[in-house]
Amino acid sequence: MNEIKNNIHRVTVVGTGVIGNGWIARFLSQGYDVTATDPAPGAEAKMRKAIDNAWPALEKHGLADGASRDRLHFDENLESAVAGADLIQENAPEREELKRKLLADIDRLAKPDAIIASSTSGIMPSTLQADCAHPERVIVAHPFNPVYLVPLVELVGGKDTDPDNVKRAEAFYTAVNMKPLILSKEIDGHVADRLMEAIWRESLHLVNDGIATTEEIDASIVYGPGLRWALMGPFLTLHLAGGEQGMRHMLEQFGPALKLPWTKLVAPELTDELTERVVEGCEQQTEGHSITELEQRRDDFLIELQQLLEKYWPAANLNGKI
Amino acid sequence: MNEIKNNIHRVTVVGTGVIGNGWIARFLSQGYDVTATDPAPGAEAKMRKAIDNAWPALEKHGLADGASRDRLHFDENLESAVAGADLIQENAPEREELKRKLLADIDRLAKPDAIIASSTSGIMPSTLQADCAHPERVIVAHPFNPVYLVPLVELVGGKDTDPDNVKRAEAFYTAVNMKPLILSKEIDGHVADRLMEAIWRESLHLVNDGIATTEEIDASIVYGPGLRWALMGPFLTLHLAGGEQGMRHMLEQFGPALKLPWTKLVAPELTDELTERVVEGCEQQTEGHSITELEQRRDDFLIELQQLLEKYWPAANLNGKI
Repeated sequence: MNEIKNNIHRVTVVGTGVIGNGWIARFLSQGYDVTATDPAPGAEAKMRKAIDNAWPALEKHGLADGASRDRLHFDENLESAVAGADLIQENAPEREELKRKLLADIDRLAKPDAIIASSTSGIMPSTLQADCAHPERVIVAHPFNPVYLVPLVELVGGKDTDPDNVKRAEAFYTAVNMKPLILSKEIDGHVADRLMEAIWRESLHLVNDGIATTEEIDASIVYGPGLRWALMGPFLTLHLAGGEQGMRHMLEQFGPALKLPWTKLVAPELTDELTERVVEGCEQQTEGHSITELEQRRDDFLIELQQLLEKYWPAANLNGKI
Repeated sequence: MNEIKNNIHRVTVVGTGVIGNGWIARFLSQGYDVTATDPAPGAEAKMRKAIDNAWPALEKHGLADGASRDRLHFDENLESAVAGADLIQENAPEREELKRKLLADIDRLAKPDAIIASSTSGIMPSTLQADCAHPERVIVAHPFNPVYLVPLVELVGGKDTDPDNVKRAEAFYTAVNMKPLILSKEIDGHVADRLMEAIWRESLHLVNDGIATTEEIDASIVYGPGLRWALMGPFLTLHLAGGEQGMRHMLEQFGPALKLPWTKLVAPELTDELTERVVEGCEQQTEGHSITELEQRRDDFLIELQQLLEKYWPAANLNGKI
């Protein structure tokens, strides 16, 4: 596999809402020159305030050499804002028509080899690139709030995207201290948002049906599964909950529960093939570490995490009510 | 409201799988005498090994005065095991018929005022208590693995449960250093498991449809939403992602996405009433703290959490592959 080095030097951020400003703060903190554009009245002042709010955290987290808020330039004109950029990060509201039109405009105005990355939460890149003359450089690069601190970015190309441009984007996002996850297939909601959206919709059902309050639902995550998800995703978490036999035991134990009404989401059939795919996936992930070894590491993490939460949680959230 | 003090002194754990052993380790670490019972051959030896594995973590986390593994007594006979107990914690496999029969046996053998608590992941207490002569003391007390470290326990009574017994259980679980969440309505999957099961089923669909591997799905949680869920649940997380207008802005921005196929779960209709319930819930949760203030606290937490993950993550999980 050819390694592609980061050749992105000039970045433009289109749309300065919470996500756009989060990108700006991250790019600045990593020592980039950033141009920002947004047609809304008062956008520049709001943007500068948001960057100022994020900056103390970035100073604590660690700035790159030469990083400075003075290297941020606001330009209300889209044409001049994107003209010299090597990468344009688009953050318009989540409406397909609006984004398609905006991306086609950016495509027309940008250098032909500039990468155009959309922060869309769930729209597929093939849809977004459909009106572009140079669709081969249009990708989705989906971040997570707060963008200046959370490292995950999902990268996915559409049917007309050149895979080398996904690789170029990967090199760039790695250079700004992120963990790019390249998705091999595009899908509505990418991957992380499908999982978040499932929790979100189930949560809305619980509130709508009068089962629990927003506060109770939040507490049910924070004091329980949320602690584990900071270290491990759903598969490895269950692999460790299954005792020495790991995921295989869990699927035997909780496979039948997939048919119970424990969520409004209908599960797939737990076929032998799906079982093997899940079990083998988990066994690969542990890479020779025993379950006991991983349990002890998880436990040490959970102890320190709870000490950390003691510092932040009571005043930050439920004010010690629970 | 009457405050009910903890009057539970003798605890019996029925079923010594991963969850049962987790309970035993927690109760012992908090200075209780524990009797354990399980009909499986070799259960006692497996149990003692599991407690030994957990003990170093509990020593780090902090033992109560007098806590000792010597205060654990194994009794393979169910009748004598439950005879003197003030609280019996049941952890049989997740099969309704099996649990109903076992709970009826325990109910017949236990003191009439002993609390009988089932660890069931999702079966409703009204179902579980149906064959009991004293259903008023049967509750669900649903914990999370590893039970000896994760503080959440969901408490819920059935239609024949005396609310005072839920209060007695709350006092006991608080005394063993947990965060009890009392659910006002029983529902298949309680609350936290509905959320986890939604993620779990969506994850299985993604693997089944060939969209992502178990490793990719885990990474999409750990480097993104999982970081935030350690501090805040889905509602407060989105409240902080909405800028100054918080959740109200998020629902405007992402309300239409509830109709998009971003998960296989169909969302409820986002009515004005549901909107207000969610927005008001979030505003109550912040209790006068401004969004900016909460953002800064979240950021400080995320910085320290990532330092913590650096210590544990690479070797514990993906071995630096991502």
